[in-house]
Amino acid sequence: MNKICSGDEETRKVYASKAPIGIFDSGVGGLTVARSIVDLLPNESIVYIGDTANSPYGDKPLSQVQIFARAVADELARRDSKIIVIACNTASAAFLADARKRYPVPVVEVILPAVRRAVATTRNKRVGVIGTAGTVASGQYARRFREVDPSVDVFSQACPQFVPFVERGKTTGRQILGLAEMYLEPLKEAGVDTLVLGCTHYPLLAGVIQLVMGDDVTLVSSADETAKVVYRTLSERGALAEHDGRHASAACKSFESTGDPQKFANLATRFLGPDITSVAQIPRLLR
Amino acid sequence: MNKICSGDEETRKVYASKAPIGIFDSGVGGLTVARSIVDLLPNESIVYIGDTANSPYGDKPLSQVQIFARAVADELARRDSKIIVIACNTASAAFLADARKRYPVPVVEVILPAVRRAVATTRNKRVGVIGTAGTVASGQYARRFREVDPSVDVFSQACPQFVPFVERGKTTGRQILGLAEMYLEPLKEAGVDTLVLGCTHYPLLAGVIQLVMGDDVTLVSSADETAKVVYRTLSERGALAEHDGRHASAACKSFESTGDPQKFANLATRFLGPDITSVAQIPRLLR
Repeated sequence: MNKICSGDEETRKVYASKAPIGIFDSGVGGLTVARSIVDLLPNESIVYIGDTANSPYGDKPLSQVQIFARAVADELARRDSKIIVIACNTASAAFLADARKRYPVPVVEVILPAVRRAVATTRNKRVGVIGTAGTVASGQYARRFREVDPSVDVFSQACPQFVPFVERGKTTGRQILGLAEMYLEPLKEAGVDTLVLGCTHYPLLAGVIQLVMGDDVTLVSSADETAKVVYRTLSERGALAEHDGRHASAACKSFESTGDPQKFANLATRFLGPDITSVAQIPRLLR
Repeated sequence: MNKICSGDEETRKVYASKAPIGIFDSGVGGLTVARSIVDLLPNESIVYIGDTANSPYGDKPLSQVQIFARAVADELARRDSKIIVIACNTASAAFLADARKRYPVPVVEVILPAVRRAVATTRNKRVGVIGTAGTVASGQYARRFREVDPSVDVFSQACPQFVPFVERGKTTGRQILGLAEMYLEPLKEAGVDTLVLGCTHYPLLAGVIQLVMGDDVTLVSSADETAKVVYRTLSERGALAEHDGRHASAACKSFESTGDPQKFANLATRFLGPDITSVAQIPRLLR
């Protein structure tokens, strides 16, 4: 298999601290991961590619997802990414092993960071995982749990209808509540004390999921955990961008899609955080 | 003590589902809480007030913080907030009991949600708490842990230098790493397996904090936990905004400060998430 950007000179170049962090997903979900990375590393340049022309990955055969994911990651490698983040559970399941061989830069994905956190937080060794049909069918979570802590019992549940609700901004109301109750009932019956949100869209449903599961169940977001692994990986390699004294947001954050850019931009706003519709100074409330 | 907006008619009015969620902090830190709330409840109107004219609260006597916090919360009540979120650990410590008596709407703060999550995740019953000098000196975290689970040993550490680093966007490099090592060493020596980020700025330092504490320690963010409590509280009261079919961000998100609005707006961008500097469509990578 040919490495992209292999060779000593190129390797040094892509490790250069000013090189961007390359992130991809089938669509907008990975933006929750991108945002967590920007939170922790505001001075880094970011290139994000949403492969919306081929989205969603979640209901496609893994062999096909592997081909799509490789094409996008190759593009990130061509842009001299110093690290490649597979910000998509389905693509992680399909493409990680291949990617680690293919690129000279570190490849971080979203499954193992979440599994490690869940192993660290569960007390009764019963952990739930929710994700797309593709992620659950891949068995990747169950496999990783066996590697990290074979004593953990893993209960998986596909939640195929969650993503469209998130993308429509419908995170409240009877429909989503009923859907969450239906999907999560087997996990409640199994008595899990920790639940991995195994799809990058799901952190935006944490309100209804926590409501249904009850307060005692700890939700694990792969977005936050993955961002911390990116921080550690770049830090250990001395590959973090220097703080150059400018305003943090001066570092370039580029978001690209293979499909309709306007639709992508609209959804991206929802995933990256609220626009500030107004900022005003109000009078001192006390004198 | 006079209630603001008390009385049956007013109470109904402020519970109306279209009323805003009122959120305040001494400055920008509470925006991490606001963002988590917007994530889970994109259709809600938000009024956020940063009391930057009196910021920071963290190093002032609690009696003075109580007076400042009351003035800001009164303003949120006057705006018909259907719930008031004290998105500031120091103000929570100083003002919660007073606020619960003073307003007819629910008051949510950031300490108890984080304490409950930490109690649910710790396995060795040794929990660390980091915060401002004011928050740590108040003893509020230790008190809440005693109420929720007296068998938990709590180890607190003030980290007064963290906030300026976050606000300058300096989340990497030798200085912040050295500072984190110095502050966190006693908590590592105490063998905590869970660490509460007891200041709304600290989620943006989760990278360096996780690096220093090691992967086995679970970080608890009060921002995420508080947002889920807001979701549950409004849901239980039937006070959630209806999804009206418009784009989610159509709901008004107003951010106001009592001090310099431009400085506030610059920092707000950092806390609310990245601006999209460019959105582009790239060619399909595979045909």
